[in-house]
Amino acid sequence: MAGKSTAPSDGERKIPLLKGVNDPFSYVSDELNLVEENLSRAIRSREAQLTEISGHLIVGGGKRVRPMVTLLAYAAFGGKRIKDIVDIATAIELIHTATLLHDDIIDGADTRRGKISAYKKFGLKSTLVAGDFLFIKAFEFAGKFDETVVQWTADACTMLTEGEILQSHFNRNRAVTLDDYIEIVKRKTASLFHTGTKVGAYLAGASQAMVDETERYGLNMGIAFQMVDDILDIVGHPDLLGKPTGMDLRDGNPALPIILALKHGDPAVCAAFDCENPSEPQIALAIEAIKNGPAIAEARALAKQAAQDALQSIRKLPPSQYRNGLKTLVQLITDRDF
Amino acid sequence: MAGKSTAPSDGERKIPLLKGVNDPFSYVSDELNLVEENLSRAIRSREAQLTEISGHLIVGGGKRVRPMVTLLAYAAFGGKRIKDIVDIATAIELIHTATLLHDDIIDGADTRRGKISAYKKFGLKSTLVAGDFLFIKAFEFAGKFDETVVQWTADACTMLTEGEILQSHFNRNRAVTLDDYIEIVKRKTASLFHTGTKVGAYLAGASQAMVDETERYGLNMGIAFQMVDDILDIVGHPDLLGKPTGMDLRDGNPALPIILALKHGDPAVCAAFDCENPSEPQIALAIEAIKNGPAIAEARALAKQAAQDALQSIRKLPPSQYRNGLKTLVQLITDRDF
Repeated sequence: MAGKSTAPSDGERKIPLLKGVNDPFSYVSDELNLVEENLSRAIRSREAQLTEISGHLIVGGGKRVRPMVTLLAYAAFGGKRIKDIVDIATAIELIHTATLLHDDIIDGADTRRGKISAYKKFGLKSTLVAGDFLFIKAFEFAGKFDETVVQWTADACTMLTEGEILQSHFNRNRAVTLDDYIEIVKRKTASLFHTGTKVGAYLAGASQAMVDETERYGLNMGIAFQMVDDILDIVGHPDLLGKPTGMDLRDGNPALPIILALKHGDPAVCAAFDCENPSEPQIALAIEAIKNGPAIAEARALAKQAAQDALQSIRKLPPSQYRNGLKTLVQLITDRDF
Repeated sequence: MAGKSTAPSDGERKIPLLKGVNDPFSYVSDELNLVEENLSRAIRSREAQLTEISGHLIVGGGKRVRPMVTLLAYAAFGGKRIKDIVDIATAIELIHTATLLHDDIIDGADTRRGKISAYKKFGLKSTLVAGDFLFIKAFEFAGKFDETVVQWTADACTMLTEGEILQSHFNRNRAVTLDDYIEIVKRKTASLFHTGTKVGAYLAGASQAMVDETERYGLNMGIAFQMVDDILDIVGHPDLLGKPTGMDLRDGNPALPIILALKHGDPAVCAAFDCENPSEPQIALAIEAIKNGPAIAEARALAKQAAQDALQSIRKLPPSQYRNGLKTLVQLITDRDF
């Protein structure tokens, strides 16, 4: 894959991850540019509104972490059929974006990635249909592959929907345990990561053992990714996050620091989590309580453990710059402050 | 295909179409039973709620007209790989059901097929996710086929979403023309019919000319189907329809008799169609005005013309009982009163 590797053409939105010399984006930047081209083509519709809504999120950015791990896993096993892996990486990003559009409807979200959400801007109906449209475009890209890849991609999507339902059972539900949380995260967040890395290794012709190991990397890396996301929802900076902090408390989501604070019986967190419509002072109190209690340190330790598990899998992969990229990515994810 | 053909195991819900000796269901009843088995298996999820919501519509019936035309088109060209055609027919019904779930959210529908809608029963969030789940299951079934079939199936889905957006532009919009209507119907209703028949002929190894002719049958048959649906929304009986009449007037949908009555400048119809929230007396007045004006007869003539166009294509297909089935189906559709 791209050794020369110029910076991605729309690198600006990726700057937050471009720290350090071993920027994992740089190893597959040519391929990521092809993913961008695929995405731009995919969202063209004769109905201008579908293109506009899809473009609202697609052109608006996203870190493209899912396509990147897919491309890196493929390259790590010497895959050479660039068009194939770019197509499946595109499908995975399209699925991710489709679920974001539908999630914003479900959550009634006002903002996404620092700007007004598609749901607020375009309304329920058009946003719902645009989400369907992106699922269909993903199907066009993924449907060309063999039955194994089609099945794995479909399984990832099924996990996403099941994760969404499972999470809703634990919305404002203090019965939620750490095990429930891990189950939700495996399905809702990690599924597209471990499917991407698994498909990458598989399409590059890796052995079954290596496919499994690469999948395990994606799974644990995805879990670490979500855990850090949950931590940043409490301790992050709204300008860097592109959204206010405390969103999980407002929405009643069973996020990691909340679950840990509930376990400690923190009264401010219990009050905000139980309440159908917590007030802003209630949210502020709960955020302060979580920051001052042990939950953040505990959550960081859990995220670090998941990251260690991901790195453990990395060590079993054949050495290459792409393996280094996958390794660096784990560090960037766990160190990030946005 | 099934010459012996026992009655479908759950024949009761199909009774309305089971008139006359040449019941088109009977020619492919074994295959339709396999579609039912596929559907039951497809909706099994470890999240019981997804199975329940999916089953609410899938088990609750539907006329299975889309799988049927797909199966008949395949059999009409001597197709023998039953599992293949049953799988793609299943995918088409799953796509149809997914769009029904999402349509009910979009329309805020209270009822569907004579019972409470999934949206009203299970709420927005779970119904939206269940629609996604069914799209994904459709993808599992359709993704196994060659690129042509995958592309056609995806194209049908894209048409569905574009038709939905196009229709929304003409919601309560008196600028709508008959041409706009045909465009909407081609994409929103006819797409799954003509894709089903096209795929059926193609997978059975029909010539390009015959594939095109069979597609044309599906297109015109689908248009006739929707036109009759629109007529029945005015003149049908609520008990047979499973919903109140006048739903298109309530929702502001640009349905055929409404468009024709608007063209004639009918004041009661204009008033009800323009109004954001027409009252029940306004709806009743508009229904009576449409019934007493020329719109119904004109709409019937247009439906009959579409049916004639479908029958014209049929005549070019090789003679067989399956061709007869496709022919009878057109007659049943245009004669139906539910």
